[in-house]
Amino acid sequence: MKEEQAIHRERLSGVFAPLTTPFDDRGNILLEQMASNVQKLNGSGLRGYLVLGTNGEFRSLSTSEQMEVLRTVAKAASPDKVIMAGTGAESTKVSVDLCFQAAEAGARYGSLITPFFFAKKMSDHALINHFVQIAEESPIPVLLYNNPGVTGITMSTSVVKEVSSHPKIVGMKDSSPGNLSAYILSAQSGFYLLAGSANFFFTGLLMGAVGGVLSLADAFPEPCCRLYELGAGGKIEEGRGLQFYLMKINQMVSGKFGVAGVKAAMDFAGFYGGPTRAPLAPLTTDEKKKLREDLAAVGFLKE
Amino acid sequence: MKEEQAIHRERLSGVFAPLTTPFDDRGNILLEQMASNVQKLNGSGLRGYLVLGTNGEFRSLSTSEQMEVLRTVAKAASPDKVIMAGTGAESTKVSVDLCFQAAEAGARYGSLITPFFFAKKMSDHALINHFVQIAEESPIPVLLYNNPGVTGITMSTSVVKEVSSHPKIVGMKDSSPGNLSAYILSAQSGFYLLAGSANFFFTGLLMGAVGGVLSLADAFPEPCCRLYELGAGGKIEEGRGLQFYLMKINQMVSGKFGVAGVKAAMDFAGFYGGPTRAPLAPLTTDEKKKLREDLAAVGFLKE
Amino acid sequence: MKEEQAIHRERLSGVFAPLTTPFDDRGNILLEQMASNVQKLNGSGLRGYLVLGTNGEFRSLSTSEQMEVLRTVAKAASPDKVIMAGTGAESTKVSVDLCFQAAEAGARYGSLITPFFFAKKMSDHALINHFVQIAEESPIPVLLYNNPGVTGITMSTSVVKEVSSHPKIVGMKDSSPGNLSAYILSAQSGFYLLAGSANFFFTGLLMGAVGGVLSLADAFPEPCCRLYELGAGGKIEEGRGLQFYLMKINQMVSGKFGVAGVKAAMDFAGFYGGPTRAPLAPLTTDEKKKLREDLAAVGFLKE
Amino acid sequence: MKEEQAIHRERLSGVFAPLTTPFDDRGNILLEQMASNVQKLNGSGLRGYLVLGTNGEFRSLSTSEQMEVLRTVAKAASPDKVIMAGTGAESTKVSVDLCFQAAEAGARYGSLITPFFFAKKMSDHALINHFVQIAEESPIPVLLYNNPGVTGITMSTSVVKEVSSHPKIVGMKDSSPGNLSAYILSAQSGFYLLAGSANFFFTGLLMGAVGGVLSLADAFPEPCCRLYELGAGGKIEEGRGLQFYLMKINQMVSGKFGVAGVKAAMDFAGFYGGPTRAPLAPLTTDEKKKLREDLAAVGFLKE
Repeated sequence: MKEEQAIHRERLSGVFAPLTTPFDDRGNILLEQMASNVQKLNGSGLRGYLVLGTNGEFRSLSTSEQMEVLRTVAKAASPDKVIMAGTGAESTKVSVDLCFQAAEAGARYGSLITPFFFAKKMSDHALINHFVQIAEESPIPVLLYNNPGVTGITMSTSVVKEVSSHPKIVGMKDSSPGNLSAYILSAQSGFYLLAGSANFFFTGLLMGAVGGVLSLADAFPEPCCRLYELGAGGKIEEGRGLQFYLMKINQMVSGKFGVAGVKAAMDFAGFYGGPTRAPLAPLTTDEKKKLREDLAAVGFLKE
Repeated sequence: MKEEQAIHRERLSGVFAPLTTPFDDRGNILLEQMASNVQKLNGSGLRGYLVLGTNGEFRSLSTSEQMEVLRTVAKAASPDKVIMAGTGAESTKVSVDLCFQAAEAGARYGSLITPFFFAKKMSDHALINHFVQIAEESPIPVLLYNNPGVTGITMSTSVVKEVSSHPKIVGMKDSSPGNLSAYILSAQSGFYLLAGSANFFFTGLLMGAVGGVLSLADAFPEPCCRLYELGAGGKIEEGRGLQFYLMKINQMVSGKFGVAGVKAAMDFAGFYGGPTRAPLAPLTTDEKKKLREDLAAVGFLKE
Repeated sequence: MKEEQAIHRERLSGVFAPLTTPFDDRGNILLEQMASNVQKLNGSGLRGYLVLGTNGEFRSLSTSEQMEVLRTVAKAASPDKVIMAGTGAESTKVSVDLCFQAAEAGARYGSLITPFFFAKKMSDHALINHFVQIAEESPIPVLLYNNPGVTGITMSTSVVKEVSSHPKIVGMKDSSPGNLSAYILSAQSGFYLLAGSANFFFTGLLMGAVGGVLSLADAFPEPCCRLYELGAGGKIEEGRGLQFYLMKINQMVSGKFGVAGVKAAMDFAGFYGGPTRAPLAPLTTDEKKKLREDLAAVGFLKE
Repeated sequence: MKEEQAIHRERLSGVFAPLTTPFDDRGNILLEQMASNVQKLNGSGLRGYLVLGTNGEFRSLSTSEQMEVLRTVAKAASPDKVIMAGTGAESTKVSVDLCFQAAEAGARYGSLITPFFFAKKMSDHALINHFVQIAEESPIPVLLYNNPGVTGITMSTSVVKEVSSHPKIVGMKDSSPGNLSAYILSAQSGFYLLAGSANFFFTGLLMGAVGGVLSLADAFPEPCCRLYELGAGGKIEEGRGLQFYLMKINQMVSGKFGVAGVKAAMDFAGFYGGPTRAPLAPLTTDEKKKLREDLAAVGFLKE
């Protein structure tokens, strides 16, 4: 048991890039560009990839499209990169099915977003049952995914306390504003927290998070990895400086524009970002030009 | 054109039951019970059925399950009943695909819930493009489905004004609290409003709605049809009395318990309600007993 | 008792104007303009005035300013007009004190907004105690004021059911979107509902509300009174037409611009509207010009 | 200028206790207990006191009561303690007036909660004008107070960037979940951030906040001051441990019960906490007993 925990800890420690899904202008998935992005990222210090997350526009894809994307990433990824896949659906049954499909397609972990269609009925009891039953049946271990900005549900510390003892529920990606420390405090041994945003990555690491899933890493993996090292190493002065710098970039890109901004930044950085899938709108030409200038103005891109 | 409008008006005028999806205790779909429920409802005065809506727990089903359910309903329904199906997904592309699948499975109209995973990015512009593009490509006409309690998005009157002139966007089911009159005011000719709750069905009819999609009709279709007649006929005194009575029932059933309450009421009324699919929880034995007593106490069920 | 109920019913039946508080450009209160507005309204068919409500910017005034305003209105009002005053504070004790001050200043009823600074702690139990204790101690009868758009709290039907039997809690002004019928259903005999918006005034009257507090009546009292007559008389066809027309006006004025829009409309209609008190901003010159044009375009104002 | 900044920095660096207002069972203010609480706290390492904040139930008091409380604190406080007072009202004009009254009553700084009655109209522009105009006219320097949990408004970083250059707007107490780093990043030189909760006090200090306003300090000032030293000194290991411990206490007390919990904890710790003012409810006897046991169980109180 302890040994397994050590393995999970090692696999989850570091920076994960929440891969975007490349589309053409009519919303068709571009698998070659998907593979090419991954191959470029393989050379970075990233710990791994989160496929089919919010930045992957997973709910905008059909299930078969989701699995195509996942298989493409799994094939393109170098063996040292750990692959997680979004497998959380609105029902327990469909989530379990997605865990099976994802495992077969090459995912090592499933990431379970809180079901939220019936948000008002998602009591702690309902959520605990949901997560535990999936973990029991899934062929791969799972992580919770807490994103109240999308789901309207803030995971309670009671849920974390309860499910964190399950051997196959190994961690949580937390994208909530300001609860990460409380989850670390509530979690039982062998449950690992990942910061879901660059905005609180450094302080999260100082408080005990083992890593982060940072959209900024899709375009700029290296400074994210550097911040990880500073946080994991407790280098306050240097880390604070880099944290503020990356937070400024993150506000410009993801904070202001969401997935569409992340894709624009990828385009700037030599990856294929491309458009989002409708009805989610890409940046206008003006917005994109302005973003490039803003990033250049703070020295992050060469003009 | 005017002729087509008259046909849509006729098809949409009256009460629709938003069918629930029957499950066994392990969450497996029970198609026989689905068919049997429909056959029982065929004898009522209902105008038709909404399949794969919120009460159908549509987002808790896989796409293939959704189509099985829809085919079962289409086969069991008597020819005079109009079938709508929930075909709204988080992307325009997947929604179009669902419209094609639903048309083939027997739906006459698609019902398009507002995409809401990226709720903060769903500008009027994005929504208008979404609905219009689906309507352009779909083999069947569509209705909007406005349910801010679930989506967090209140359809703006500007969106209704803009898309209501499209010949294949023929109406909207409105489950918002209190905006129905504003939508009627904004809608252009040939766009028909359906009240999405028994709570404002009667006043909605008085203001110009042509019908309603009422969860109460799953278990108790006849009083809902009676209320329709009173509203459509402008019978204020009698209608107000029945409206208040059904509102009281609706608060006990759907207001307090949501889909799980609707299913319990169906069990009481001789239909197959059964459990909800996890993580949505069914009523406890005590809650169900209490609900039966409460319904009996107001004379709605015999004890 | 029954007799008292009949008196309250008579006093509350009709249209109330929620008076605005006139300011100069530096935020000083203009009592002469206040009096003059009231004198102009005295000739209308209005049932009375609500002083120190949301449109009166009551929370933007000091307590002594509030009482000056109220005294001015009480003095200027003709004897047939019923005066209500906002006396709801964040604590029970201060509310009681305001009821005493308001009674002395000339108010016949106190209007109690739900306390909401500690909104998450305002249980039904806490609210019931609050309203009942104020009613017990206040020298004048009170009405509840339900405005979730401001307070974040939707009055529960349980609270209405419980407090509506109190002889000194005689009604509620409801500004919630869509709950008016439910409150009518829950209320006990002798508790009178007032629609808090022109948007649902007509349907509210059809369902049993006795009147309305309509910001539109600050500038345009007569069409509001006409709508009251149509609703109270059950004239569906004519009432629906006027309801839609006034709803359109109301959306342009109060819906889009709030208090600042109401004040601009008052300026157009020959009253003193003037600026709002900072930080609430008045309409810009362009907005005001556009609003006047929009109102003229629908025939509501002569250009 | 630089000198003044240094003075403000020195005055704001450390832990402030947001004093509660003592009441008897009928809601009357107990000034002697107020003074006695302050005298006990004078011996601690606290930097100062925040009077008339959320924990002081300031909006539940009349203005004259507010000033009585402030005068009592100012008289009881030892000269080394810095006194801030809540002077933020719903209008600019009334806020300025409160700053004058508070200055006369002994406050060195005014704390300006965001106006929120008209929350939807509080644009950045409106807020900037509000804060700047108050600062211009106030006899004492002011701090912003950002508490979205109460106001529904999250201060934008643009507002902070804009107003932080004003020589009389010297800082902000931030009670938002997770934005403190972003505000530090946006603030201009001479603007000091105070953490508004023990939950993020330590990480806040590591990122550059100069102090905190911690309700826990009302009952337990010393461990809060100790955490300040660890954070200000960059002691990660020891600080993290104490941070988690105090967070656990804070969740039990303020997180679960709010002001009523803080008052109960004060009773346990030898201060006068007493009841809250209605309609805010104090802890029940059972809740209070349970809280004492819980605090004892984690070694924080002797049973």
